Amino acid sequence: MAGDLAGSRTSDVMTAIRGRIAGRALAPGDRLPSIRRFAATMNVSPSTVVEAYDRLAAEGLIRAQRGSGFYVSNAALPPLKLAAETPKARAVDPFWISRQALDADDAVLKPGCGWLPADWMPNEALRRAIRSLARSESDLLAYYGSTHGSPALRRLLLGRLAEEGIGAGPDHLMLTNTGTQALDLVCRFLLRPGDTVIVDDPGYFNFQALLKAHQVKIIGVPYGPSGPDIGAFEAILAAGRPKLYITNSAIHNPTGATVSPQVAHRLLNAAAGSDMTIVEDDIFADFEPEPSTRLAALDGLSRVIRIGSFSKTLSASARCGYIAARPDWIEGLVDLQIATNFGGPNPISSEIIAHMLAGGGYRKHMEELRRKLVRVRRETADRLRRLGIEPVILPRGGFNLWCRLPDGLDSALVAQAAVAGGVVLAPGNVFSVSQGAAGFMRFNVAHMLEPRVYEVLAAAMKTAS
Amino acid sequence: MAGDLAGSRTSDVMTAIRGRIAGRALAPGDRLPSIRRFAATMNVSPSTVVEAYDRLAAEGLIRAQRGSGFYVSNAALPPLKLAAETPKARAVDPFWISRQALDADDAVLKPGCGWLPADWMPNEALRRAIRSLARSESDLLAYYGSTHGSPALRRLLLGRLAEEGIGAGPDHLMLTNTGTQALDLVCRFLLRPGDTVIVDDPGYFNFQALLKAHQVKIIGVPYGPSGPDIGAFEAILAAGRPKLYITNSAIHNPTGATVSPQVAHRLLNAAAGSDMTIVEDDIFADFEPEPSTRLAALDGLSRVIRIGSFSKTLSASARCGYIAARPDWIEGLVDLQIATNFGGPNPISSEIIAHMLAGGGYRKHMEELRRKLVRVRRETADRLRRLGIEPVILPRGGFNLWCRLPDGLDSALVAQAAVAGGVVLAPGNVFSVSQGAAGFMRFNVAHMLEPRVYEVLAAAMKTAS
Repeated sequence: MAGDLAGSRTSDVMTAIRGRIAGRALAPGDRLPSIRRFAATMNVSPSTVVEAYDRLAAEGLIRAQRGSGFYVSNAALPPLKLAAETPKARAVDPFWISRQALDADDAVLKPGCGWLPADWMPNEALRRAIRSLARSESDLLAYYGSTHGSPALRRLLLGRLAEEGIGAGPDHLMLTNTGTQALDLVCRFLLRPGDTVIVDDPGYFNFQALLKAHQVKIIGVPYGPSGPDIGAFEAILAAGRPKLYITNSAIHNPTGATVSPQVAHRLLNAAAGSDMTIVEDDIFADFEPEPSTRLAALDGLSRVIRIGSFSKTLSASARCGYIAARPDWIEGLVDLQIATNFGGPNPISSEIIAHMLAGGGYRKHMEELRRKLVRVRRETADRLRRLGIEPVILPRGGFNLWCRLPDGLDSALVAQAAVAGGVVLAPGNVFSVSQGAAGFMRFNVAHMLEPRVYEVLAAAMKTAS
Repeated sequence: MAGDLAGSRTSDVMTAIRGRIAGRALAPGDRLPSIRRFAATMNVSPSTVVEAYDRLAAEGLIRAQRGSGFYVSNAALPPLKLAAETPKARAVDPFWISRQALDADDAVLKPGCGWLPADWMPNEALRRAIRSLARSESDLLAYYGSTHGSPALRRLLLGRLAEEGIGAGPDHLMLTNTGTQALDLVCRFLLRPGDTVIVDDPGYFNFQALLKAHQVKIIGVPYGPSGPDIGAFEAILAAGRPKLYITNSAIHNPTGATVSPQVAHRLLNAAAGSDMTIVEDDIFADFEPEPSTRLAALDGLSRVIRIGSFSKTLSASARCGYIAARPDWIEGLVDLQIATNFGGPNPISSEIIAHMLAGGGYRKHMEELRRKLVRVRRETADRLRRLGIEPVILPRGGFNLWCRLPDGLDSALVAQAAVAGGVVLAPGNVFSVSQGAAGFMRFNVAHMLEPRVYEVLAAAMKTAS
């Protein structure tokens, strides 16, 4: 209560000053009333006036001149409302979908986005983890942290790798700010401009955006229900010398497919044959009903690099990623992260994630998510079929549903029409290096519960046809 | 209390299971006792056993098989203690100092590090900001956030730029994970391998490490008490076509010098003459007793890019940086950040920083820091002089003191000897492109209060001479 009262007194003083400036009683450059005098005028304590002046200074309305009091800013005030981050009229490419989804305001529905709705996330556990962070030692809260990242989180990740049968030690593992930064570091470490890299077609669209930033040649390998077309994969290796293959393991984005043990085995042999490295992005693995054959587990982190993050399962706000790889590569990657990020990743995020993983709640949270997704996936598939939209496969887990649109429909045109209706969709070709997926669309089933999604989708299909 | 009790019951169960595994009563692969039966055995509630099993699973000691209970892990346990992050026996280069300082354990003293001791930082304000974060809306805690970063923090930064007379709008500003990442994005955006970049000599060592990662040619410009040697600067521009000049403004790292208005003016004219971009790293600006002439303020963000962070003033753990630049460049930089980081920077860190800047406490905190540093800087200078170590200039602010060692001493040898004694120092040549600073050392005065620093330093000087 006392706090609230003090707070309201502070805002009374702020309102009074704002009023004088708005009414030109105080002009730009004018000195504000002295703390003591204005405290008397407003009948509050001097400290309340100091607090109010400091807050107004933080807003830029006034400035504190060191030593000599407060003055009305000469400069224009910062705009109270920030402009829309992203112009709607951009070409439909990987950046289009990222920006539309990330910068959409609350009114917009986002079945095209790559994350779960906030109310599906373990927010209470997250708040508990944040409160416990507030109680942690000052060193943790003040310092950059170690170059490899939070020891607590690395211990937990080593335990999870051990569960998979990957006997990794501390020198096999480093933390990063994000899963995408993990991949970016790996690319910087292993690739040079002009190198060739294989990605899945269809595959996660931001892999293309990232690889373009590295100025490498991107080749797509057709991706089917049991993984990449291994014949095509072997042909690509025979034709050239690709340096890297980047793929989503466990549950593939966007198709939701899983690599079969036979394909995994042949992939590794083919890679070994032409001395190619494979990056296995783990991000959807915890959505699997039961663990599938994993490349890093078969290979034991010799030519496979495992990356991952917790943005899909715990929080995309407390971001944190990791890289598990050969110790000599980790050593080089750590230097690269120091050069380009100074030190390891954000320690407070890593601690929050570690707290959530260490607690007993994580497994229960994931079991509940999986149960919920089975139901929502089935419902969504039925409702889409009624619009003539056919799921290509029904995935074992995760929230993505890769679907074929009725013949002749261009999903990019549908997506552009839907944006106008306040719905962000993920058209097929943003996932396709060959641009052969115009007739497909990825739907995030967790964002398909609102009837309005289907109304806008149906209308957009009409507009586009 | 109830919580503590439940916690101790949980750890009793964990201890019991650990004991059975250690004693081989439970072998790898064995199924653990059922929840209900073991709850009865231990005389605790089933939920306590579930919590204990989940925590042991998180540690990797046991694994939960979805649907069918818990089993002892076949895999080796993760090591309980993480190996030392960084080998002491590395060449003394920019990475050497970064790693020695970042990975040093608590017993090590770090006058070579580039940050303040934890107990100098506003930890209570930080804890308050974290507690208020725990109360914020779920969307903020669950989602990636906008591509440009936290609107709250951007508003505050626009206010601070306005105070400097820089009339920037929302489209001039983006947030990044760290100040170093801000510079890395700018380099990726503006540089190509083989380009030439000017840095100060001496200058911040990690600029060199970062530029090496970009495979560019690095030229050092001699840096003196009033800024870079403008004649030498103009000569470098006449000789070649450098793309970029990267410098610390306000209070220079490592010298603590400040660019004079005349030098600032001539720098900008020279840059304009050969169409070069200047990156002004703001990171020490708030340590100034009064604001100095700033390049971005003179130039108005046309060819000057302002970057900064809050790691020196608020927290290096809740990391957050920013870029202020031409709107068309910001647009390209945002795409580049999406490609390499997906989305903007860690939202929870940005909110914590925004909360601390918006509160009235920030100005008081900085005033106290400046007062404290004036005193400690003078004391440290006196104590160093007694060892024959002479400050080159006494800075207006900040915590760095750039000093000349007694004739003939190689600061790299002194630093290596000191590391053996548990003291991390910053030898001159890690700051010098020309390697002409072997006789110099940078001291962080805030870490020079312990007598042991001077004892180890004196001994190391003996060893090195």
